[in-house]
Amino acid sequence: MIFHQFFEADSSTYTYLLASEQTREAVLIDPVISEVEQYAAFLEQHDLQLVYSLDTHVHADHITAANELRTRFGCKTVLHRNSGVVCGDIFITDGSAIRVGELLIEARYTPGHTNACTSYVVNGMVFTGDALLIDGCGRTDFQEGNPATLYDSIHLQIFSLPDDTLVYPGHDYKGRVSSTVGQEKRNNSRLGQGRTKAEFITLMQNLKLPYPKHIDVALPANKVCGK
Amino acid sequence: MIFHQFFEADSSTYTYLLASEQTREAVLIDPVISEVEQYAAFLEQHDLQLVYSLDTHVHADHITAANELRTRFGCKTVLHRNSGVVCGDIFITDGSAIRVGELLIEARYTPGHTNACTSYVVNGMVFTGDALLIDGCGRTDFQEGNPATLYDSIHLQIFSLPDDTLVYPGHDYKGRVSSTVGQEKRNNSRLGQGRTKAEFITLMQNLKLPYPKHIDVALPANKVCGK
Repeated sequence: MIFHQFFEADSSTYTYLLASEQTREAVLIDPVISEVEQYAAFLEQHDLQLVYSLDTHVHADHITAANELRTRFGCKTVLHRNSGVVCGDIFITDGSAIRVGELLIEARYTPGHTNACTSYVVNGMVFTGDALLIDGCGRTDFQEGNPATLYDSIHLQIFSLPDDTLVYPGHDYKGRVSSTVGQEKRNNSRLGQGRTKAEFITLMQNLKLPYPKHIDVALPANKVCGK
Repeated sequence: MIFHQFFEADSSTYTYLLASEQTREAVLIDPVISEVEQYAAFLEQHDLQLVYSLDTHVHADHITAANELRTRFGCKTVLHRNSGVVCGDIFITDGSAIRVGELLIEARYTPGHTNACTSYVVNGMVFTGDALLIDGCGRTDFQEGNPATLYDSIHLQIFSLPDDTLVYPGHDYKGRVSSTVGQEKRNNSRLGQGRTKAEFITLMQNLKLPYPKHIDVALPANKVCGK
């Protein structure tokens, strides 16, 4: 398979390109609108056809490139049914999957950061969006977030994967690019080391995080696919 | 919306075309391989682009046109994840949905005839495949069929729709083209008139139906999308 990790510095967002070497079909996970020229250049350079753009959730910190990519490449916009984003093309639910050549991209519903968060599993990798981050997790105080739900999502849907599964998060603020399920189960400072659900809820309820700086622009834009 | 019901006489199969008047995008539900020229003529005549072919399940009585349509029109093949049909493009689960212009096509998982049966709901219509038929239902003695499961699927997923919802089945052997949810709740001779689950199971277990005449050809072919 062809794999590439893009980084958007303003919101520290990771975008992932996965493509089939056989069919040259590609998907982008969590593309950012300001980076479309980079994606286009990569696709052209590697002779790839973009067939789907997937969002792990409705982002509050950057604007999705979904609509821009659809207009430019004719790809389909994919996100969870609970997102309420009516401009999507394919609305997945837990267990849905999309095939791209020899790659099967499986959706696992992982709500808690938002009510529509989905992680995507393919070939020993999991793209966790803002559910599980490296040594952290998404905040739970906006967009129908819920710490108890997030705890269950991470434990049941992500930590149930094999320990050597590579974890690719939606963001990292310290330059780390990936982790593993085993590493996060052991060492994640919010969820690892056998932390209980009650402890996690208390921790999340006392984070006292600032109001997200782009949420008032990003959320309305993302509800219309970044138009 | 644009709507057309096709009939394939050998297996008495109904195929449905739904299309957006705005975008001219179309889907076919349960297309039959022998009828591809008819679909192509209709699409051309109405200036439509086929974007998805949907199967309600892995059929045992006819061969799907999924692969033929994909090759010819570049559409995506859609069916339930449980089908085990690895050549599909989009594997839906309960609650998944696909948007085609102004049409939202919602999947409701309705197993019991097979373990991968899905009904599609759009604009006050439900396409029930072989789960609910007019004054009948699909058999439950092959392909992981189960009468108790089918009873629950029909009651919870189809009879819970408004009574005036139009029912479009996967087959009819007596020339009837549609029914309504209310009509089937009242009068379906296997499921209507308050028939209990226990009564339904006994009835289905005593049907003594003949071995399906095309199953040994159709099933292997449909597991590879009708190639």
